[in-house]
Amino acid sequence: MNKAFDLIIFGGMGDLSKKKLLPALYSGWLAGHFHPDTRIFLTSRRAPDQSMKEWLQDIFSQYKPARSVTEERLNGFCEHVEFITLDLMHGCENWQKLHERLTIDGQDRIVTSFLAIPPSLFTSVCSLLDKHGINTPNCRVVLEKPLGHDLESAKKINAEVAQYFSEEQTFRIDHYLGKEAVQNLLALRFSNIIFEKLWDSSTIDHVQITIAEDMGLKGRDAYYDDSGALRDMVQNHLLQLLCLVAMEPPARMDGDSIREEKLKVLKSLEPMTNELVKKTVVRGQYVAGAVNGEPAGGYADDLNLKSSSSTESFVAIRASIQNWRWANVPFYLRTGKRLADRFAEIVIQFKDIPHHADPEWTGGALQPNRFIIRLQPDDKLVMSMMVKNHSVDDGSLKEVELDLDVTDDKRVGPYMRLILAATRGDHSLFVHREEVEYAWQWIDSIIEAWQSGKGGTLFPYQAGSWGPYEAHDLINREGRQWFHESKVR
Amino acid sequence: MNKAFDLIIFGGMGDLSKKKLLPALYSGWLAGHFHPDTRIFLTSRRAPDQSMKEWLQDIFSQYKPARSVTEERLNGFCEHVEFITLDLMHGCENWQKLHERLTIDGQDRIVTSFLAIPPSLFTSVCSLLDKHGINTPNCRVVLEKPLGHDLESAKKINAEVAQYFSEEQTFRIDHYLGKEAVQNLLALRFSNIIFEKLWDSSTIDHVQITIAEDMGLKGRDAYYDDSGALRDMVQNHLLQLLCLVAMEPPARMDGDSIREEKLKVLKSLEPMTNELVKKTVVRGQYVAGAVNGEPAGGYADDLNLKSSSSTESFVAIRASIQNWRWANVPFYLRTGKRLADRFAEIVIQFKDIPHHADPEWTGGALQPNRFIIRLQPDDKLVMSMMVKNHSVDDGSLKEVELDLDVTDDKRVGPYMRLILAATRGDHSLFVHREEVEYAWQWIDSIIEAWQSGKGGTLFPYQAGSWGPYEAHDLINREGRQWFHESKVR
Repeated sequence: MNKAFDLIIFGGMGDLSKKKLLPALYSGWLAGHFHPDTRIFLTSRRAPDQSMKEWLQDIFSQYKPARSVTEERLNGFCEHVEFITLDLMHGCENWQKLHERLTIDGQDRIVTSFLAIPPSLFTSVCSLLDKHGINTPNCRVVLEKPLGHDLESAKKINAEVAQYFSEEQTFRIDHYLGKEAVQNLLALRFSNIIFEKLWDSSTIDHVQITIAEDMGLKGRDAYYDDSGALRDMVQNHLLQLLCLVAMEPPARMDGDSIREEKLKVLKSLEPMTNELVKKTVVRGQYVAGAVNGEPAGGYADDLNLKSSSSTESFVAIRASIQNWRWANVPFYLRTGKRLADRFAEIVIQFKDIPHHADPEWTGGALQPNRFIIRLQPDDKLVMSMMVKNHSVDDGSLKEVELDLDVTDDKRVGPYMRLILAATRGDHSLFVHREEVEYAWQWIDSIIEAWQSGKGGTLFPYQAGSWGPYEAHDLINREGRQWFHESKVR
Repeated sequence: MNKAFDLIIFGGMGDLSKKKLLPALYSGWLAGHFHPDTRIFLTSRRAPDQSMKEWLQDIFSQYKPARSVTEERLNGFCEHVEFITLDLMHGCENWQKLHERLTIDGQDRIVTSFLAIPPSLFTSVCSLLDKHGINTPNCRVVLEKPLGHDLESAKKINAEVAQYFSEEQTFRIDHYLGKEAVQNLLALRFSNIIFEKLWDSSTIDHVQITIAEDMGLKGRDAYYDDSGALRDMVQNHLLQLLCLVAMEPPARMDGDSIREEKLKVLKSLEPMTNELVKKTVVRGQYVAGAVNGEPAGGYADDLNLKSSSSTESFVAIRASIQNWRWANVPFYLRTGKRLADRFAEIVIQFKDIPHHADPEWTGGALQPNRFIIRLQPDDKLVMSMMVKNHSVDDGSLKEVELDLDVTDDKRVGPYMRLILAATRGDHSLFVHREEVEYAWQWIDSIIEAWQSGKGGTLFPYQAGSWGPYEAHDLINREGRQWFHESKVR
């Protein structure tokens, strides 16, 4: 049983809270992950006109929790939740009330503040938490992306939060790290000799990490046009996944040891020069096309932009990790909007066997092994291998896929898992300040190359395709191909 | 489609023919593995009183083929089968008739003689085949165990057959080599880089090969009391399986290359001295006990022996392969009758990971990987590995088993597969003369140690147990344990 804790969601009536946090908390509560004394405080400028129960019912009818909602269950969950009206810019009476409601003094109860608000409000909230005594050693703060739009702004945010909360108290969420398949990647690598033994350049040909979305922007996302795919997806999710695949075995499975190893990977990334960006980074923006059989507009249409935008909605990168283990093993990263399908996966492509003892194996019959960590739409680990084609008896081979069922326990889910880890003080699933900053440093060098005009141009791609032809060439010219590029899933 | 061939089964009305060959041929025919012109000749001293159809019907009601028998199917199958009355000791008119029935002259049709008869008749049959011109280059001969009871007698049998048939024409069956899981072992090892990379002393702790039977002898098997478990099972089946696990990658997947590699393994077996036999070989004989809840008599009771026998019904061996790949990786072999269960499997036990990054993994939670090739009762390949215990969220691990479904296509089955391979002239699934002889040489040294009285004594074990306690100690004193010893399957 988890200990009782208090969770304050700043931005309690905001999108993240409604779409992700509350459905996750409801399901986690129902699955028995809450101590009966656990409390959730939703802060917002104004409380809703409805009762808590009505309000939650509305939310859950839109953003359905993993487990079904009944009258009785809702009553039970409501007992753990309350609204607090708060002005996040200015201290007020209710901040004092919040402090009184929390059982901080003289107790070892954990109070976790989840900042589900824009980073521009972080300083204000942190200073008010401080002013009202809600940053004792038992208090923790959880932050979500975007943490800055470049190294400088990220440093600023980190420094501001650090004025009031130590790094030990700070938990930066990357919800991909809470996914079941990602956590199993670590378990597989470091508790099975058969995996770690295969995990280097002597056996692995290359790695692909893809987060593909079929959705467009739907006119709402001014933030996206400011940031673009590189900042929005690569700086955090894709680089974090790269770190987990590439890291050396940690001395211990704790936050410090894992962070050290992830940091070493980020520091080993080949620095991006203008020339290298032009050669190994492809950015694109979608033009009108069709997705899943439906006509789809272009990027500027979707955002109702009057003029054209130079923001990339797609980026593909051939990254090199300059260390002993990964010499000559490219990591191909790829993400974009309005692609042919929605999925996220890591593909570990093994090398071909050194010798084809049967000449018939050559020319396609024998496929090198592949290990796939699928994060979206389902959690799945799949190893492909060759076996005898036993329906016939001519010694021919066929490829089969071994599935390791790691379907996420939907009653937990990434957000519930991460909130519980934060209340336990377990940093192993979170992103350290230094990781954020090293990642930005690498990303900034790509952006600088683009801005200098020496880092290549923005290529168009049709909505519903797999991105610009140049992204295809990026991998194809090395005799490799994107997984799923040619087949309809 | 396979080419048409003629198959002569010498001993056509004998046990092997009725129990194994005819049901396999029927199923293979039904599955379309026969060219319409394929013919099967069953030789015996006297034809049955029934029609072929009635006779087959009787057999198939006792020894059911994998696919069901209907009137219509039986009629179809009968068209391929005919009786020939033959005296195997003396040439006679019918031998001439047999030659005439076969379409040997001026054709490239393959004629395969399956000697489903005692080895004492091999010379006679081979010389008569020769005398009647049935050993042209298109003719092949298939032999089954027992091929001798020691090196000398095996050499004699091989030499006798070799007078009339070249090694190229001679196919020695070990039906374990026809099993789907065994053939997949080769496919897995040599067409997947992830397997061969793991396949040596740096990753593998030890190998276990077990063929366990729960049946006793039922008073019928005088042959067994003459031979014992070592000659009956280890010399052929267990050593062949050991060769396939241990062999180096062959240059080609053909008979010659595979044989060369298997031979190298047999030559690398640590020679057995009297002292080594005493230390690393355990033999046993069952005494009364209970199997599957039923009382079971002892060995001498089962055979209705007046006096005691010194024949072993159980043997366990710790074999060492003295080469670079397998240094310090013991191969534990085990076979016996009247054991707790009936199964045959190869267990590749991997080493523990070098470092437990989470102290909770130590003490049983983390199990080293295991790869199991199961041959009986079903064909199965299973890899056990550790994954995150995802029903809870404390970072704990659990063991899961990845099954590779290689269920035998029962319409083919080992015997049909091997007969087809022989007609194709494919030696890769058969045992070469030299292999038989090197295996006997090793086995003989164990028997000599026993006979000298310096190789340890015969230990009793209870019917329905896993063999003598000394067999338990053989592996246990090295900190290992027999797989399945402690659990009821």
